[in-house]
Amino acid sequence: MTPRKAKALDSLKARYEMKKGAIMFITIDGGDGSGKGLQLELIKKWLVERRVDFVFFRDPGDTALGDLIRSLLLDRSDLAICAKSELALFMASRAQLVSEKIRPALQEGKTVLVDRYLLSTVVYQGYAVGADEKEIVRAWDVGRILVDDVMPDLTFVLDCPPEIAFQRLNRKRDRIESKGFEYHLRVAQGYRDAVKNWSGRAPGEAFLIDASVPPESVFEKIKDVLETRLNRF
Amino acid sequence: MTPRKAKALDSLKARYEMKKGAIMFITIDGGDGSGKGLQLELIKKWLVERRVDFVFFRDPGDTALGDLIRSLLLDRSDLAICAKSELALFMASRAQLVSEKIRPALQEGKTVLVDRYLLSTVVYQGYAVGADEKEIVRAWDVGRILVDDVMPDLTFVLDCPPEIAFQRLNRKRDRIESKGFEYHLRVAQGYRDAVKNWSGRAPGEAFLIDASVPPESVFEKIKDVLETRLNRF
Repeated sequence: MTPRKAKALDSLKARYEMKKGAIMFITIDGGDGSGKGLQLELIKKWLVERRVDFVFFRDPGDTALGDLIRSLLLDRSDLAICAKSELALFMASRAQLVSEKIRPALQEGKTVLVDRYLLSTVVYQGYAVGADEKEIVRAWDVGRILVDDVMPDLTFVLDCPPEIAFQRLNRKRDRIESKGFEYHLRVAQGYRDAVKNWSGRAPGEAFLIDASVPPESVFEKIKDVLETRLNRF
Repeated sequence: MTPRKAKALDSLKARYEMKKGAIMFITIDGGDGSGKGLQLELIKKWLVERRVDFVFFRDPGDTALGDLIRSLLLDRSDLAICAKSELALFMASRAQLVSEKIRPALQEGKTVLVDRYLLSTVVYQGYAVGADEKEIVRAWDVGRILVDDVMPDLTFVLDCPPEIAFQRLNRKRDRIESKGFEYHLRVAQGYRDAVKNWSGRAPGEAFLIDASVPPESVFEKIKDVLETRLNRF
């Protein structure tokens, strides 16, 4: 087959799949320095190529209330915010994002791609601060209630040992978390534990993707899952 | 006994009771126009007279984060806030109040009096918006998780038919809620249902106090409960 023919066939195939309604709610998650930003760009590019009608959001943020809460959480170091308050603020921002953006998009038949979601809260405000299993289950429960059970079909979790993630972050020192190495170890382990215990706590599927390898290899694995899912519809 | 002797005895009794540690977490709740402000003043006066070492807070508010959230919820009509976000924001403010003020005060052996608490959220963001029993139970659960189960021993609920509450509010028109009569009926009924179904959902005791009678009669009933509880310690 000539490249031109192949391209035409791909395009036809993509349109056919779109017609069948390739509706998905996809989230991507992972610790700082795991290469999430780059993989997000590659996923977006792939969705465009496959002519999937999609929208992209980031959590927290992307609504007026969400931006306000985001700046509260990230920029107001003068403000005392306890662990449970922090949890509730992330949940408030997410509830607004669901109500204003995610649910309407899904209802219009669009695919939704979100940078971080409830899993981030479970890991950072749960596992990373030493929550026990009972508290983790509670965080999932509270989170699902507050998003009206609008939960992702697919979650990609970039798994990167902090040693490697730290090397990556060292290139741009301003983004380094101030919490230290031990904290990042707990975050990384939290993501692994969350994926291992996914069933029964969250619907949909979660994939732990080795993110210590080159970005192209990481995306190959993500693409394999996306292709399979897209063909399922 | 002469009044002077009686007073001296009362004072001695109060000191003795304080020594035994009359620790209580008391909240007062009720719809707008139920006379909550006046009853709060009477309770405070009584606590002072009985030499109970107490602190008073209002929810939402009374922390830097709480005041910020309070102004978000009450003054920013330009900001879209969905029902679940509103719920989470009230919870965030309350979690901070517990962590910064309520728990430390209780740990110091102080009695804590709070204007509104989790019950307000259950009624206004639950019952009043037509939530079903399952959602009400969820709101209690989420709320208790986010306050680390720091729940009141005693809750006074001022029960006032909206017809009467509205007449009271009419005297100061600026405080009238814009939500209309039907809404206030749901709030009033919500408080009654919440107290009726208290057991198993919240610890401690809740007392529905008829607030359609003159304020002195309302306070008589509150005082009876307070006296009994104080003598129990």
